[in-house]
This record gives sequence, structure tokens and C-alpha cells, in this order.
Amino acid sequence: MDLSVEETQLLIRRIKEGTVIDHIKAGEALHVLEILGITGLEGEIVSVAMNVPSSKIEKKDVLKVANRFLKSEETDKLALVAPQATVNIIQNYKVSEKRKVELPDVFRGLLKCPNPTCISNMKNEPITPTIDVIDKEAPLLKCRFCQRLISPSETFLRVITA
Amino acid sequence: MDLSVEETQLLIRRIKEGTVIDHIKAGEALHVLEILGITGLEGEIVSVAMNVPSSKIEKKDVLKVANRFLKSEETDKLALVAPQATVNIIQNYKVSEKRKVELPDVFRGLLKCPNPTCISNMKNEPITPTIDVIDKEAPLLKCRFCQRLISPSETFLRVITA
Repeated sequence: MDLSVEETQLLIRRIKEGTVIDHIKAGEALHVLEILGITGLEGEIVSVAMNVPSSKIEKKDVLKVANRFLKSEETDKLALVAPQATVNIIQNYKVSEKRKVELPDVFRGLLKCPNPTCISNMKNEPITPTIDVIDKEAPLLKCRFCQRLISPSETFLRVITA
Repeated sequence: MDLSVEETQLLIRRIKEGTVIDHIKAGEALHVLEILGITGLEGEIVSVAMNVPSSKIEKKDVLKVANRFLKSEETDKLALVAPQATVNIIQNYKVSEKRKVELPDVFRGLLKCPNPTCISNMKNEPITPTIDVIDKEAPLLKCRFCQRLISPSETFLRVITA
């Protein structure tokens, strides 16, 4: 038995404090990291498992971030790429809070409008980008300033990260 | 105890067949995934641990890819971002091969020259991009066609993925 491989089995353990995002759509974990602004260079222990078997959905991704308690306004952005995800806040090894990600009625200061000429993208304007969710099922979004319709697939690269 | 969190502890297990890349420089795991062309959408079980304590280096990242045996020419590309990484090929839960990533003398068909006007980037030319490693310590690379000097930091986005 090789030691360093033995060692790596021990890496992904229960976290004492932090956030576990479960039931992410299989293959979407890297998008979730991107949306949350997690690169690994922040220094926190982060673990990601992709395409693992799941009872609820056929396959899923799971993300754990130690020592970071993700707020609703951060995790609600995930509804765009991981609508089925559940967020577990862990304190002292126990789940202190459990919530589903949910599309809010409006993203205020969280997403950029994809229209480059939208007034909300002008540097000199003191405007908070405001994107309304006009259809939560589809889902479909709309910029309040230029009225552009926005589909989730074009939003994930335009998330304003923490 | 919450079931779904309990469940996630079981996700990152020893892999039966596949590749474990250990001792990746802390925070570089996502670059390693990018270089290997792994997005998660391929469907294989992939796990990533970032910033975990290590005996050899202070902190490290670890990557496991199930059912994929990475060849030397694939993992040698990692020397650009993860020079200390070790590659373990796992078969039937055991390490069947262990190697260090190593900068080759030349990258042939593996990296694109960053010079957009280099003849190796012309679509109509039947040329295999050829990048020589002229200094393995620094490290420093050089395009054999346009003689452009290339630093590793500008290469990782230009890796020709599988």
C-alpha cells in the first residue's frame, strides 16, 4: 500500500465548520465554484466531488467549503446552474441550517447585464445592476435598465463575485 | 445527524481504477483540471481537494480521476503549473505506477504558441505546434517556428486538450 495514496483517502472528511452544497447537477461543480468566486487561492480547504452516485438524482456533484458560511444571497445565484442544490451550513460538525437554493425575484448587484451598452455597465454611472427574474420555471431574466431578456446560460460568467 | 451530509462523507473513497495526482501546489487544482481538459461533463467520477495539509509541502491540492489512466504526455503538461506533482496510476485499488511530472524537452502538438501570427497558428498550415523547453529550472519555453519566448504563466490557457 502506497502511503501518499492512503493519505489522500483521509483528506475529504466531515468539515467542522463551513458549507456543504449537495445535489448539484452532475458536471456543474466547476461552474458553482466560479459563481461563488472560489479559485482555491483563498487558502480554505475546499473539496469537490463530481459525478458521484446519488439516491435523489442519478448522479450529482458535491462541494464542501471549510470555514466559510455562505449566505442566501450568495447561494441563490446558484439556482441559475444548480437549481436542485441544497445548502447545508455546518457548525461543530452538525447541520445548523439547511436550505434549498432559490431564484430570488430580483438580482440586485449580483449579476451584470450581458448587454455591453446597457447603462448599468457604464463605469461612470452610480447604478446597481438590477436583473428581474420574470419566469422562475423557465427560468428567464430581464434587465431592469435596458429590458434585455437574459437566459441563465449567459449569466454564469457575468456573476459579480464576492 | 443529517443523512445527506453523512452521505457526502462517503463520496471520496479510494478509487479502484484511475489516476491520483498528488502534491499539486495549493490552489492550482483548477488549473490542473483545465490543462487535463476535465470539466466534469465527461461523466467520470472526479474528486478534488484543495489546500489540504501535507507532510511534504505545507499545503497541497489533490486530484483523483476514476477510470482514466493519464499518460505521461498528458501529465507532463502539468509541470508548467504543478512541478512538484506526483502521478499515481491505480489499478484494482493499488498503485501500479508512480511517476513525477517532468518537463519534457519539447511539447509537440500539446501547447499552442501564444503568438497569434505564428505560422503554427494558421489554420491552413499542416504544422504541428512545437514548443521547446529551453530552461527547465526557470522554466522557459520557446516556439520553434516564430522563436517567441514563452513563460509558463501564459501557457496554461493554451494547452491543446485531449
